[in-house]
Amino acid sequence: MTASDPVVPGQLRDLVWHPVGGVRLAAGAAGIRYQGRDDLLVMELAPGSRCAAVFTRNAFCAAPVRVAKTHLGQAMPRYLLINAGNANAGTGRRGLADAESSCAALAALGDCAAEEVLPFSTGVIGEHLPVDRIAAALPELLGRLDASAWPAAARAIMTTDRVPKLISRTFQIDGRTASITGIAKGAGMICPNMATMLAFIATDAAVAPGVLEACLGSAVTRSFNAITVDGDTSTNDACVLVATGACGNPEIRDGASPEYGVLQSAVDAVCVELATAIVRDAEGATKLVTVQIEGAADVDEARAVAYTIAHSPLVKTALFASDPNWGRILAAVGRAGVRDLDIDRIRIHLGEVLIVDDGGRAPDYTEEAGAAVMAEPEILIRVSLGRGPAEARVLTCDLSYDYVRINAEYRS
Amino acid sequence: MTASDPVVPGQLRDLVWHPVGGVRLAAGAAGIRYQGRDDLLVMELAPGSRCAAVFTRNAFCAAPVRVAKTHLGQAMPRYLLINAGNANAGTGRRGLADAESSCAALAALGDCAAEEVLPFSTGVIGEHLPVDRIAAALPELLGRLDASAWPAAARAIMTTDRVPKLISRTFQIDGRTASITGIAKGAGMICPNMATMLAFIATDAAVAPGVLEACLGSAVTRSFNAITVDGDTSTNDACVLVATGACGNPEIRDGASPEYGVLQSAVDAVCVELATAIVRDAEGATKLVTVQIEGAADVDEARAVAYTIAHSPLVKTALFASDPNWGRILAAVGRAGVRDLDIDRIRIHLGEVLIVDDGGRAPDYTEEAGAAVMAEPEILIRVSLGRGPAEARVLTCDLSYDYVRINAEYRS
Repeated sequence: MTASDPVVPGQLRDLVWHPVGGVRLAAGAAGIRYQGRDDLLVMELAPGSRCAAVFTRNAFCAAPVRVAKTHLGQAMPRYLLINAGNANAGTGRRGLADAESSCAALAALGDCAAEEVLPFSTGVIGEHLPVDRIAAALPELLGRLDASAWPAAARAIMTTDRVPKLISRTFQIDGRTASITGIAKGAGMICPNMATMLAFIATDAAVAPGVLEACLGSAVTRSFNAITVDGDTSTNDACVLVATGACGNPEIRDGASPEYGVLQSAVDAVCVELATAIVRDAEGATKLVTVQIEGAADVDEARAVAYTIAHSPLVKTALFASDPNWGRILAAVGRAGVRDLDIDRIRIHLGEVLIVDDGGRAPDYTEEAGAAVMAEPEILIRVSLGRGPAEARVLTCDLSYDYVRINAEYRS
Repeated sequence: MTASDPVVPGQLRDLVWHPVGGVRLAAGAAGIRYQGRDDLLVMELAPGSRCAAVFTRNAFCAAPVRVAKTHLGQAMPRYLLINAGNANAGTGRRGLADAESSCAALAALGDCAAEEVLPFSTGVIGEHLPVDRIAAALPELLGRLDASAWPAAARAIMTTDRVPKLISRTFQIDGRTASITGIAKGAGMICPNMATMLAFIATDAAVAPGVLEACLGSAVTRSFNAITVDGDTSTNDACVLVATGACGNPEIRDGASPEYGVLQSAVDAVCVELATAIVRDAEGATKLVTVQIEGAADVDEARAVAYTIAHSPLVKTALFASDPNWGRILAAVGRAGVRDLDIDRIRIHLGEVLIVDDGGRAPDYTEEAGAAVMAEPEILIRVSLGRGPAEARVLTCDLSYDYVRINAEYRS
């Protein structure tokens, strides 16, 4: 299954990717919003496939999110139906009916129940979904489902993304080679009018449902839930992990087994790479920035400090300017809400350069050393709080003119 | 005291302002960072004056903030010493010594204890305060203290501010005319490298210390603590309210008395106008935006929703673009962390135009009506949560190219 894998050309970098037994895909142009490009994706999952999913926590979650949650509670899905160009969010009761109708249209063609279809949408908020155009495009798509359509799938779900995002691995499990392949879209935590981070990951390993959910939850915590572009959580965010079992391994049922460890590592790796690809492609981004907090009393405060730094417009504009403006980092740490913070114990590194020590500028710090780190395209900001053993890491980007341009001009 | 008040020309708009009995000021050029402009201000308070102050909650509070807090706990101040161009923040133990030395230098000349001087600094973070230059400038300033120097004072404390901020009122109390005059600086919650919102307000009414503190706390809650430019709380924020008693009214000791009500209204008005002036002058701002939350279960959740909207880069760029992009407002409400939010009860108005109702776009809403509101220089975003009686209001601005330019290029 791996030796003869096609090489994905150009746009997806020179990346070897792997089909996933039990998963067939087809992408096509339904004319939902865009002209001259694919905007509709069907993923068919073999009978017996397991599926886990996590969704946005935004209270204004979109209609497809609500429908997908309901369907997932009723049946294991046979199809995922994904459209770009329209988020079907902020569409009230009609939005729910539209999402249901789309599922029913696919179910009728695919000979399954509507509950066995999960719908996903990304695009403009507040416009009604053109269900008729989606339904009209489905027969042709179902006629050409194919295990090798992953690159086309990655392109079909793009909105403001500049590049498609496809990550693939193989791993050994019980003497067999399993594959895991995922696609994602997203260029802001919420894109302009376009809403959403979406990710669909499939493996042909056999995994019991409860174990699959735990595996996805753990991977998402360290990947998609550890990135931020602008702090704006979308109405449509969703991440799906499918395990088809086509690889033939004995089903993984024990979260403490070595097989589970191998699976978790593979899922983690794919999720982290997809999440990193989203931040690299973030709207207007010129820098990939890792904010690492160490020595926190607990993970919650570590994450609070990391996100305060990662969301600070002043830190982000300094990163854009390649300005080692450590006062802004220091001020962000100070306002992160950590109780009884002893500022004299805090150390801040830019890359390997110690910039803040003992409540002030480190004695040996020079502007030149800081500027050299800030000139790099990938930057590590490391803050040690000196309070305990907990850590957190968040991936983010800078704030540029282009972020304002993209988000100010999108609808004009 | 009011009839012959000078009219402040040009730069401070055509604004009548009032000296405050018991307060004399002098501004001068100490060459702290800027050339050819005043950057040092001394305010002398008559013996017996009362003083209340609130300070930044940033754990990395600057050296002058720490010293001012300590001094205020030890004695009622006779002098306020304020410099622009250097924040004396992130300067460690030497920063504390520098702030103390500055106070001591003024105390020696003013014949008082160092504890009777409160220091305030605003400007670049992380550089040591040039105490010698400050000390050298003080004798000349003390030699020309003057009750009419308020406009010069407002200019001397500016950093990236485009306009000085001076607000003045009179009010009647026990048959006497009291005056209240305040100055402020600030163009971001934290300016580029420059840190800080500073405000100094004085009245010649006689007010007991505890009552004065309550009065300031209440006014700050509805003014300086209800504005945001970029969410970055400064290391140096401070707001001081002085009551000299020179007007001769019986001291206000009862927070429930009619006289207190008059005082509170006057202090509120001056603080709200100064806070509004700060947002109007915000870095890169082109719009003055009021976010008003109604129908919240409690004030905390009302403020949480208001700040989530006001801090959203996507809402702020839409405001810059005059784009009635209600999906971004809706998404911000949805991620504000309100428990059990019933999205079907939420209504969102842009000005008087109902845009969101019943979980989706209001039936009668038109893009033209929304666009007309967004084209105005002052915009009201009103969200009704339908959960209870609590309200909150936050004043903010848009996010423009110039915000990025100012903050990315400041040190270059």
